[in-house]
Amino acid sequence: MPIAPYIYSTMNSRMSSVIRRMFEEGAILKKKYGEDAVFDFSIGNPDLEPPKGVVKAIEETAALRVTGSHGYMPNAGYPETRSAMAQKVGREQGAALAAQNVVMTAGAAAALTCVLKAILSPGDEVIVSAPFFPEYAHYAANHRGVLKPVSARPDFSLDIAAIGDALSEKTACVLINSPNNPSGKVYSQEDIIALAETLTAHGKKTGRLPYLVCDEPYRDIVYGGKKVAAVFPHYSAAAVVSSFAKNLSIPGERIGYIAANPAMSDRDDFIAACIFANRILGFVNAPAFFQRVVAASWDSPVDYSLYTERRNMLMAVLDKAGYEYAVPEGAFYLFVKVPAKKGFAQGLADDMGFCDHLKSHLALCAPGAGFGCPGWFRMAYCVSKKTIEHCGGALQKAREAWQ
Amino acid sequence: MPIAPYIYSTMNSRMSSVIRRMFEEGAILKKKYGEDAVFDFSIGNPDLEPPKGVVKAIEETAALRVTGSHGYMPNAGYPETRSAMAQKVGREQGAALAAQNVVMTAGAAAALTCVLKAILSPGDEVIVSAPFFPEYAHYAANHRGVLKPVSARPDFSLDIAAIGDALSEKTACVLINSPNNPSGKVYSQEDIIALAETLTAHGKKTGRLPYLVCDEPYRDIVYGGKKVAAVFPHYSAAAVVSSFAKNLSIPGERIGYIAANPAMSDRDDFIAACIFANRILGFVNAPAFFQRVVAASWDSPVDYSLYTERRNMLMAVLDKAGYEYAVPEGAFYLFVKVPAKKGFAQGLADDMGFCDHLKSHLALCAPGAGFGCPGWFRMAYCVSKKTIEHCGGALQKAREAWQ
Repeated sequence: MPIAPYIYSTMNSRMSSVIRRMFEEGAILKKKYGEDAVFDFSIGNPDLEPPKGVVKAIEETAALRVTGSHGYMPNAGYPETRSAMAQKVGREQGAALAAQNVVMTAGAAAALTCVLKAILSPGDEVIVSAPFFPEYAHYAANHRGVLKPVSARPDFSLDIAAIGDALSEKTACVLINSPNNPSGKVYSQEDIIALAETLTAHGKKTGRLPYLVCDEPYRDIVYGGKKVAAVFPHYSAAAVVSSFAKNLSIPGERIGYIAANPAMSDRDDFIAACIFANRILGFVNAPAFFQRVVAASWDSPVDYSLYTERRNMLMAVLDKAGYEYAVPEGAFYLFVKVPAKKGFAQGLADDMGFCDHLKSHLALCAPGAGFGCPGWFRMAYCVSKKTIEHCGGALQKAREAWQ
Repeated sequence: MPIAPYIYSTMNSRMSSVIRRMFEEGAILKKKYGEDAVFDFSIGNPDLEPPKGVVKAIEETAALRVTGSHGYMPNAGYPETRSAMAQKVGREQGAALAAQNVVMTAGAAAALTCVLKAILSPGDEVIVSAPFFPEYAHYAANHRGVLKPVSARPDFSLDIAAIGDALSEKTACVLINSPNNPSGKVYSQEDIIALAETLTAHGKKTGRLPYLVCDEPYRDIVYGGKKVAAVFPHYSAAAVVSSFAKNLSIPGERIGYIAANPAMSDRDDFIAACIFANRILGFVNAPAFFQRVVAASWDSPVDYSLYTERRNMLMAVLDKAGYEYAVPEGAFYLFVKVPAKKGFAQGLADDMGFCDHLKSHLALCAPGAGFGCPGWFRMAYCVSKKTIEHCGGALQKAREAWQ
């Protein structure tokens, strides 16, 4: 009566759950040393409360007395909610979407899981730019797909030539995440167009046009006037997956969506397959209550300027503590270089070891190896300003003790 | 750029989505002919509204002003909610459960999906008693498991000898559903004990003790003094999956749980694997809001006597219209024999054809073939009394036109 060997070995591999384990160990450390003594940068759990529009929509939904309002609806979601999302994505992508182009899901993770179930056959490949969100590997493996990471350029932008080289007849999709978790990179419009051209050429040559899946939960969180590029006008076989975890600060409620480019040649099959996947994977439908909430409140997001403050504060703290990092253009993560250790050649920095070392200084960060990018670590700065203000001493001491 | 061939063929197979399609076609028919003209018995979408305790808990949760109350929590759920569920299952099973024995999930479908992900290796078998809930086949196939149906006895009780014959070293689990959807059968305490003995003997012989997974969303909906048997005292390797879709009438909100027998020998691994599956399958966690709602309201269920009324009414209608059926002991489904067609040998009744025929009389029912039991069809009577009162004419005409 053992559990499945694959699950046993995967769940006990150190890499597999390093971020979540940090988050859960953080709770234990806080109990032991006090909330204020622990600097928890482990996970993207926004510290901003949901904005007023969301709070109001929650109250209104709670007060609603409509027969069947907590009952089943079509697996794709409420027509009104799908319609609101079509409006949202239409505005972002500069394309006219109908409600029928949208499937409501239990968060962006569920959305991506459904898309991959819809398109992957055993052995099919999902190309990602490294560093990437580590759960992608599981989401592909669940459906017998294979994640194929391609290293980003040194500034963490897409390496289009390398992606082109990685394409094959096994490529079901290219999965991009802009702003990127963990690097904070926002891919330029030029790079998106170049990627679209590369994929189009590959499709013409091989007869298999890869899907381009855009994971965009951080789309609205950008700095210095950056803008996340539209994809739909440049590539027909594109779909967006997203959620309201970050821009409405409700990650625990699990509400998101899939939106397909109206110009996609097999669009109706694609949407039908995503709806079917939503059902047979056991999601059934996105939670009814928060479908109503986001339909009413999607256009009144949190005050992103608060993340700008946090970002600038943390960059100043890291400068002072003597760390190198990539300046984030979006999202709320700082990707930081592991300090070189005396006696080790550069590039051999041990990010797992350094994150353990940071933990002994009560600072919780996620090692880059988990993101396919060893030698770096990630700090999620969606935390209180107090945490950022006071972490400098611990970070500096940790660096000095390491070197 | 096609979707995955497996998904394409499965989603377009007539059987695969016959119930959901009925539900969605029903909405179209109601628009065309009016709500009152269509007799929709297609799906288990309770017509009872959530009870007062739930409505109150929703209002209180909406009014809650606690920092991070919509944020991430541990993947297993809130400790308070897990603790409340441990109390619930402990009472039902006559066993002392701790919060650590429970994982909160996005409904019973998600719960079962996570359990199967945790225990299935490729080719492993899941034994079910036919008739069974059709989605089981997908839930097993998602993780490369194989559903192995074993026909029930003529009264729809478990055929323990046949289940014993079906066991092999590939058997990862036996999955039972009491009260059963679609037959309404409640398995007796004697049969549960006999099943436990059979599984224990098999485990001793082969070294692989199968899990016994009890899918119990209808546990509290029983008739004539029936009681759903406890399993934990009789079999260590047992787990319950359930939800609040039926007893709190909130199926659209997707909230449920997994509870493991505290006596299970690998209990901690099993729970850890379910939590890990919850994460990597993209569920991440059960919706935060309804975790709070059910923790507060699980013990104030809907008034089940209303289902007793509906059951008795529908049995009287079917008697008058000339149908044979299995008297339900629980749940809210009536499993009805397809009337013999002139010129056909008994047992060759075409349930798919008869359900199409019923649809032409504006009565929507689900064919038994979808449940692994051809020659029957299912009527979900969690519908208004008006629907039940007025359907008799259509059912009778349909039978007469068929014969």
